[in-house]
Amino acid sequence: MPDRAKADPFERKLARYAETIVHVGLALKPKQQLIITAPIDSMPLVRAVTRAAYEAGCSYVMPVIDDDIVKQIRYRHGSKKSFDVAPAWFYEGMGVALRAGAAHLTISGSDPFMLNGEDEDAIARGTKALREASVPAMRVTQQLLTNWSVVACATPGWAKAVFPELGDADALERLWEAIFAAARVDNDDPIAAWKAHNAALHARVKMLNRKNCAALHFRGPGTDLRVGLAEGHRWCGGAERMKNGVVCNPNLPTEEVFTMPHAMKVEGYVRATRPLSYQNTLIENIAVRFEGGRIVHARATRGEEVLHSLLASDPGASRLGEVALVPHASPISQSGILFFNTLFDENAASHIAIGSPYPHCLRGIEKMNAGEMIACGVNDSRIHLDWMIGSGEVDVDAIAASGVAEPLMRAGEWIN
Amino acid sequence: MPDRAKADPFERKLARYAETIVHVGLALKPKQQLIITAPIDSMPLVRAVTRAAYEAGCSYVMPVIDDDIVKQIRYRHGSKKSFDVAPAWFYEGMGVALRAGAAHLTISGSDPFMLNGEDEDAIARGTKALREASVPAMRVTQQLLTNWSVVACATPGWAKAVFPELGDADALERLWEAIFAAARVDNDDPIAAWKAHNAALHARVKMLNRKNCAALHFRGPGTDLRVGLAEGHRWCGGAERMKNGVVCNPNLPTEEVFTMPHAMKVEGYVRATRPLSYQNTLIENIAVRFEGGRIVHARATRGEEVLHSLLASDPGASRLGEVALVPHASPISQSGILFFNTLFDENAASHIAIGSPYPHCLRGIEKMNAGEMIACGVNDSRIHLDWMIGSGEVDVDAIAASGVAEPLMRAGEWIN
Ligand SMILES: [Zn+2]
Ligand SMILES: [Zn+2]
Ligand SMILES: [Zn+2]
Ligand SMILES: [Zn+2]
Repeated sequence: MPDRAKADPFERKLARYAETIVHVGLALKPKQQLIITAPIDSMPLVRAVTRAAYEAGCSYVMPVIDDDIVKQIRYRHGSKKSFDVAPAWFYEGMGVALRAGAAHLTISGSDPFMLNGEDEDAIARGTKALREASVPAMRVTQQLLTNWSVVACATPGWAKAVFPELGDADALERLWEAIFAAARVDNDDPIAAWKAHNAALHARVKMLNRKNCAALHFRGPGTDLRVGLAEGHRWCGGAERMKNGVVCNPNLPTEEVFTMPHAMKVEGYVRATRPLSYQNTLIENIAVRFEGGRIVHARATRGEEVLHSLLASDPGASRLGEVALVPHASPISQSGILFFNTLFDENAASHIAIGSPYPHCLRGIEKMNAGEMIACGVNDSRIHLDWMIGSGEVDVDAIAASGVAEPLMRAGEWIN
Repeated sequence: MPDRAKADPFERKLARYAETIVHVGLALKPKQQLIITAPIDSMPLVRAVTRAAYEAGCSYVMPVIDDDIVKQIRYRHGSKKSFDVAPAWFYEGMGVALRAGAAHLTISGSDPFMLNGEDEDAIARGTKALREASVPAMRVTQQLLTNWSVVACATPGWAKAVFPELGDADALERLWEAIFAAARVDNDDPIAAWKAHNAALHARVKMLNRKNCAALHFRGPGTDLRVGLAEGHRWCGGAERMKNGVVCNPNLPTEEVFTMPHAMKVEGYVRATRPLSYQNTLIENIAVRFEGGRIVHARATRGEEVLHSLLASDPGASRLGEVALVPHASPISQSGILFFNTLFDENAASHIAIGSPYPHCLRGIEKMNAGEMIACGVNDSRIHLDWMIGSGEVDVDAIAASGVAEPLMRAGEWIN
């Protein structure tokens, strides 16, 4: 049976993708347990990853399968009073497992439009409750305590959203092609390709860390934004060493280099260059204004209620936790496809994220107390939401501590 | 969309089945959370139950989806050293949720032959590890602390196992028909039908409790077994009041009345009248001999290794925890179908179960210490496995404390 399966070109590519996920994305170690969070339509990938994981010596694979239709039924038939309820017991348990050494894979692939048309207030409340309940698990990955990765799987619903003009089978095939290409699985030796790509990202990171600028200045249509960087910030990108010693790629694909903004030092206005899909809801044409690091005004032509609820989730939710640079020439951007999926769209464009920062983007954070962290500009929030602000029309300058501006990107491309 | 769905006869029957599960099986209360454990091929029923649960005021439905293929991949590609690993964190969390008031629905429907041909020792170890990890959740339902129910869903794999001579679609349809019939969903008013059926079972329970016999004596081909009953045993059957005050039907269907045997007072030999499927492995032609309550010799023509491992799991695993009487005229027995699924097959025939007893089958157990429980004959084990010993050829006598025998069943039917 395995041999027959491997004879099919799609199955062969899927198996190679699964191996890339296990060996590059997760860098799974023998005897490690693996928790996979995945939508129900991604079972072919779940099973392929399960096999690759066991072949790598994994001791237990636990898939946690999510069903969008079950979610939709809730918003249609659930009692309004119940939308603040979430299964905290589950995420507490997952947090325990991850702290005890399990690795975590998130497979992304739900239909981004699944909940369009449902009650926005209900979704906002349900999403907030889930987000708060999931903190024990999210903290572990955000603090890089264990190896984890986020990858994508083509599903009929997502494919239809991306390629509405194609038939179901063609749409699914096109989306798989885009995913395989972005994950460098088209390559005969994806593991070598990722080694080279990681080296290129690490070189860019090194250049930016040497520069050690005080702020970034974004200019483009509807955008004039100065993002101060945290004192002692560190640029990151590509493979990362986790606290358990494992070097893994937390995102597959990844094209970004990113660092920690100063939570109090963001000024100006910015217009999103791509829509974003958050928990199956589309948020379109976001335009916000910052004062003293805080978003003081936010609009969206669609999903505005969900956006406002997000910004109000806690005091840090209206401040930045991440700023990332991605060249417009990135392969995902050049594909010209709008994926309605952050994992892909954020790797097609420079972006910012509201909410919590990645602690490893600040030097010496382990030894700081809360007051010291605030003084350096570290934001604190239970949310983390990326949105895209780069395009072929956006310029970026690096601003030195002296105030001198130096061009970093012009028309979306690196100067050097 | 709901109206169109309801127009389809199958969808209409599925919706009625889901409502029967929620209102009769679980007797779900408004604001209660619900955890559903289900195989991946049962999603149509999972979604229908989710809808019925939310319509009944449920506050959160959490489906936990199990995939047989993931399980199979483990036994084929996992490291031998890893089969004793299980996700304890998950069952601990579920135990917490159930103790906090969530209801639990188990949907049964996996392919009973899925793991045939895989390494028996590996399966025995993996199954034992899962069983031990799941104790925190199992204890809660076994002690009736919350309302729970076990129901069935037709799936392609199970249908094919039951009706190998039919095509896929026909097999699935036949299995659904049998499930709907057994769950009394063919009836225009299943809730009234269950009320009547529960009343009939409760009358039988009352008769047996009044009789208060000391032992049961089974005689038939290959069987001459005397099952002593626990001191202070109580017969149960049909709807049951849980410790949280909810009266629910823990099994749908259910045709049995059952009580607690005396762990030390079972003598003789017994031959199983139907094969049983345990964790996707078929165990066929079980024949065992009891001495002083303990199984001292056990054979099976298939799955013997799994059976031996089960009997050796702990000291109580080779002693009885349940004895149940089901007339041969039971509708499930009369269907003539061998389901390879305990929920159905145990309701087609009188049966015994090795392992843990249901505490509510003994009066006053709450106030007893361990010594008093042992003196009454209460078994203790982490497993509970039913196997069928009744048929149209088996007679059952009630043995009074005085030693006088009184016929209870002849040729598988109640005397009165
Ligand atoms: Zn980013
Ligand atoms: Zn981000
Ligand atoms: Zn029983
Ligand atoms: Zn039983």
